Amino acid sequence: MTGPARVPDSEYRDRVATTQAGMAREGRDALLLTTDADIRYVTGFLTRFWESPTRPWFVIVPATGDPVAVIPSIGANLMGQSWIDDIRTWRAPDYTDDGIGLLADALRDVTGTGEKVAVPSGRETHVRMPLADWERLQRALPDRLFTDDAGVMRGTRMVKSPLEIDLIREACAVADRAFDRVHEIAQAGTPLAEVFRRFQMLCLEEGADWVPYLAGGAGPGGYGDVISPATTAPLVAGDVLMLDTGLMRDGYFCDFDRNYSVGEPSRAVQDAHATLIDATRASFECLRPGATAAEAFHAMDRLLTKGGAGTDGGRLGHGLGMSLTEPPSLIAADDTVLQPGMVLTLEPGIETGPGRIMVHEENVVVTETGAEWLSTPQGDPIRQLPA
Amino acid sequence: MTGPARVPDSEYRDRVATTQAGMAREGRDALLLTTDADIRYVTGFLTRFWESPTRPWFVIVPATGDPVAVIPSIGANLMGQSWIDDIRTWRAPDYTDDGIGLLADALRDVTGTGEKVAVPSGRETHVRMPLADWERLQRALPDRLFTDDAGVMRGTRMVKSPLEIDLIREACAVADRAFDRVHEIAQAGTPLAEVFRRFQMLCLEEGADWVPYLAGGAGPGGYGDVISPATTAPLVAGDVLMLDTGLMRDGYFCDFDRNYSVGEPSRAVQDAHATLIDATRASFECLRPGATAAEAFHAMDRLLTKGGAGTDGGRLGHGLGMSLTEPPSLIAADDTVLQPGMVLTLEPGIETGPGRIMVHEENVVVTETGAEWLSTPQGDPIRQLPA
Repeated sequence: MTGPARVPDSEYRDRVATTQAGMAREGRDALLLTTDADIRYVTGFLTRFWESPTRPWFVIVPATGDPVAVIPSIGANLMGQSWIDDIRTWRAPDYTDDGIGLLADALRDVTGTGEKVAVPSGRETHVRMPLADWERLQRALPDRLFTDDAGVMRGTRMVKSPLEIDLIREACAVADRAFDRVHEIAQAGTPLAEVFRRFQMLCLEEGADWVPYLAGGAGPGGYGDVISPATTAPLVAGDVLMLDTGLMRDGYFCDFDRNYSVGEPSRAVQDAHATLIDATRASFECLRPGATAAEAFHAMDRLLTKGGAGTDGGRLGHGLGMSLTEPPSLIAADDTVLQPGMVLTLEPGIETGPGRIMVHEENVVVTETGAEWLSTPQGDPIRQLPA
Repeated sequence: MTGPARVPDSEYRDRVATTQAGMAREGRDALLLTTDADIRYVTGFLTRFWESPTRPWFVIVPATGDPVAVIPSIGANLMGQSWIDDIRTWRAPDYTDDGIGLLADALRDVTGTGEKVAVPSGRETHVRMPLADWERLQRALPDRLFTDDAGVMRGTRMVKSPLEIDLIREACAVADRAFDRVHEIAQAGTPLAEVFRRFQMLCLEEGADWVPYLAGGAGPGGYGDVISPATTAPLVAGDVLMLDTGLMRDGYFCDFDRNYSVGEPSRAVQDAHATLIDATRASFECLRPGATAAEAFHAMDRLLTKGGAGTDGGRLGHGLGMSLTEPPSLIAADDTVLQPGMVLTLEPGIETGPGRIMVHEENVVVTETGAEWLSTPQGDPIRQLPA
């Protein structure tokens, strides 16, 4: 299978051991996982089937021993190829009991009366199961204490292994190659929707397994936001085109963007781009073990808003890995202490006019002594497309 | 913007009116929506940014009047292009209060003491926000009654408008064209991962905006499951290749598959394929207003398992629309009464050997008098690829 086949079982055992150490530290007796990335992190279960909201999926990390998978039978074959031995299935959807009885039994097997069953409940999490079933589960286990996971999964996943870093680096290399070929598919007159379509084809041709995320914009001297899908409007000379992709390769994301000027950039666009590159480099220079996410934010923000409160984007970068965005956030309030193995995006944004912005983004990893680029860092000046 | 631009405001007003009629019937005073498809259904807010789990998004449908959007400021520009006027934003992520205060205020504005705030809580739903914030919201509004939505969103979304049906038909046509070109990209010797990559490129070239879902398999006389990503194993003569795509066009999915024999199919494969086609047609013939989802299931199942319990897939079809899979489920236990405008997949599966299955899938819409195909129905025999 793509991805997991490249990750040895020992890596999953290490991840579970780190998770269990965190659980022990926080006094959690079992950890219940319900989302794609959390479940994949400990099992290697890689599928695009999460796109279907119909079926819930559960994995339990006990205080000791291997995880238990409680999953719909449609996933038995695929989970059976993972390192997980204890796989319990039901034929979902089941309107009488959609796996909750089976899940309660499994939690009863790995915990005792009065013990704590933790679920990731804090920032950037959600519980992926029907709320009615979540309440039913708690009623089925009245003598267990359901609680948050005290950030254990967040802390464990935030620090990447050397293999994970290699996989993210490869995803970045795919996007690097696709960004280098944008001139083949985009010029004045090309509808933005066609640019988006063709750029995704370039990503696939260059080695993406799939392209879960592409956003961007184009407009005179900047664009309105960074999360919009494409319009059918054709590119026009003087437009700045931005493409921001989170493509997936072997189960890991890259997440960075590139800006292109259609024809000669204006002085204002040149200046904005130079400021964004400077801000990215300034932040990169301050990355090292012991520095904080807030420091990485301020290194950019002092060049962008002269120490103001940032832009409406709300942050100037974030973690990256099995999810497009992960903790930490590069904001003033995030005091996460950087550690070797943390993979981050540096994503400075700047206003270029009323309702117009430009945003730049690179991917980096914190090392023992500083940081390394995972994307090939964009220099100044801005790239140009034929007008 | 792609998609929403083609949907007039009047359609969104109709959707909200139907939702509010359901709320009135069930005695719900406000409806809180948190997921991509639910929010898009009432607002038109189309973005791939849901791929980022970081930020919560909220839309409130009051008992009367227009919806209220309570969203991160990064989405203000895009939501500002929708028909929604009341857009309240905060700069997320905010570690002190990630929108909950703002959301509580908005719910207080549209409900009175003792009134019911509903959230979709039943089958195929989840609440997309941190559990800790969900609990915080309830604490912030101790004199409101939080409850399920009694299936109101499910019921509303299940019946598609003529425009929605047209959009799904167009998505199906894109996939039809891509499936017709698989012989260009797949033959004996092609690694499955390369088939998956090239097939996604075909979907894009034929007009997909993006390809949120592709799964499939290949193996001698059948495959192991229908949710796996690709391996790097090359196709071999005698393999059955299956590609199942949920591509998106203008905000709507198709979801159907095609099987291909690499070289001459065996007698067993020919028979299995013929049975799947027969089962699909039998189910299609029984579709009409007043029939049930269970009847559509039994029409297939009696040809597949001679009235057994179906396969490990758990169902033989499902609803389809803004999500890859939606209610109802074609299972024996689903007594949903079919109505004109319901879009369904018919997805019979059959065992072809130990650990080997074949699955076929088409997309249809229930009409006033019966049903229409949305995908171009596959006939017998199975398609062939060069060996």
